[in-house]
Amino acid sequence: MNARRGRPRDPDTDARILRVAGEQLLERGYTAFTVDHVAEIAGVAKTTLYRRWPTRDHLAIAVIGRGQEEIEIADTGDLRADLIDFMAQIAAGLNRTRRAGRGANDQDDQSAGLVAELVAAAARHADIGTLVRDLFDKRIALAVARIEAARRRGEVRSDSDPHLLVDQLAGALYYRILITGKPIDRRYATHLVDAAFAGVLPR
Amino acid sequence: MNARRGRPRDPDTDARILRVAGEQLLERGYTAFTVDHVAEIAGVAKTTLYRRWPTRDHLAIAVIGRGQEEIEIADTGDLRADLIDFMAQIAAGLNRTRRAGRGANDQDDQSAGLVAELVAAAARHADIGTLVRDLFDKRIALAVARIEAARRRGEVRSDSDPHLLVDQLAGALYYRILITGKPIDRRYATHLVDAAFAGVLPR
Repeated sequence: MNARRGRPRDPDTDARILRVAGEQLLERGYTAFTVDHVAEIAGVAKTTLYRRWPTRDHLAIAVIGRGQEEIEIADTGDLRADLIDFMAQIAAGLNRTRRAGRGANDQDDQSAGLVAELVAAAARHADIGTLVRDLFDKRIALAVARIEAARRRGEVRSDSDPHLLVDQLAGALYYRILITGKPIDRRYATHLVDAAFAGVLPR
Repeated sequence: MNARRGRPRDPDTDARILRVAGEQLLERGYTAFTVDHVAEIAGVAKTTLYRRWPTRDHLAIAVIGRGQEEIEIADTGDLRADLIDFMAQIAAGLNRTRRAGRGANDQDDQSAGLVAELVAAAARHADIGTLVRDLFDKRIALAVARIEAARRRGEVRSDSDPHLLVDQLAGALYYRILITGKPIDRRYATHLVDAAFAGVLPR
C-alpha cells in the first residue's frame, strides 16, 4: 500500500504494532486513535510507523485487514450451515468494531461507530480503497467457491448466481449496521440465509 | 433535529438554502463544502444557517433527506416491476451522490465518495443518526407495505418476510457502493430482484 523503503520489514515488529494498534482502537475509539500514541505504547520509533502507515486511517485499516484474515468459511458440505456460520462471524466482527472506544455505559446500540469511520477512510484515500476492495475480493471469492461447490452437489440450483447471493447476504448485514441501525446476530443470520435460499415466489 | 429558537422557520428560505447547499455539495464535494460558503451564495446570514444546521454534516444530511423524499415507490400491481424500479432509483441516487465534487476527468469508479462521508456523519452525531434512521424507517415502511399487498394478492408467499426482503435488496446496493466498489444500475437491480424472488434452492 505504501512504498517500502530502507530496511526490510520485521514481521515481529509489524505484528506487535498491529496488536497494540488493535487494542488502542477498541479501547479508545477513533477520535483518540493516533499513530504517535501507538508508537509510544509499542515502544517503536514514530518514523517506523509513519513509513509503513502514513496516516491513522492506513494503520486502522491494517488492523481490520488482519482481523478479516482470521475469519474462516467452514466447509462442512452443508452450504446453509457454512453460510450461516460465515454471516454470524461477520456480524460478530461488525458488532465489536461498531462499539470500539465506547464504554459499557454507552447505551447507544444503533450508531455504526468505527465501522462507518473505516468505510469513510476507504472512500477518502485511493490506496486504502484499493487495499480494502482487494481484501473483500479475496474473502468473497472463498464464499463464491463454497457456493459453486454446493451447486455441483445439487444443493443450490444451477442457474443461481453465487456473487448475487453473497451481495444479498453480506449486504443485508452491512446495511443494518451502517444504514438502518438494526441489530445483527446469529439468529438474524439464520433467518437471512433461509430467506435468501427460499426466495419469495409461490412454489 | 436541533432546537428551534426565535422566529419560526421560513419554508421558502429553507428551500433556497437546501437547493444551494445541494448544488454546492454536488459541484464541490465534501472537502470544500462549508456552511459559511452556502450562506454566502444563498444570501442568508450565517447565523440563520448555524441555528438550523449546527455543522456541515447536519446541512449535508438535510440535503440528502430532501432528495430521499423525492424517491417514490410505484404501485402498478406488479411487485417485481415496482421493486426493480425502486432499486434502480436508489442506485441512481447513490451513483450521483458518490461522484459529488468529482470532475468528469476523475476516472475512479469505485470509491464510495460522499456516500461514505454521509454514513460517517450519521455515525458521529447522535442527532443525525436518529434523523437518518427515521428517514430510512419511513421509506422502508412504504416498501414493506407494497410487499404485504403483493402477499395478499398471492404474488409472494405468505411465509415470506417483507423486512428481510428489503434488507437483501437495498443491502446489496449499499454493499456494492460502500464496500466492494462494484457498479450498480437498472440491469443489476433487475438481476437482484429476480434472484431474491427465486431463491437458490432446487424447485
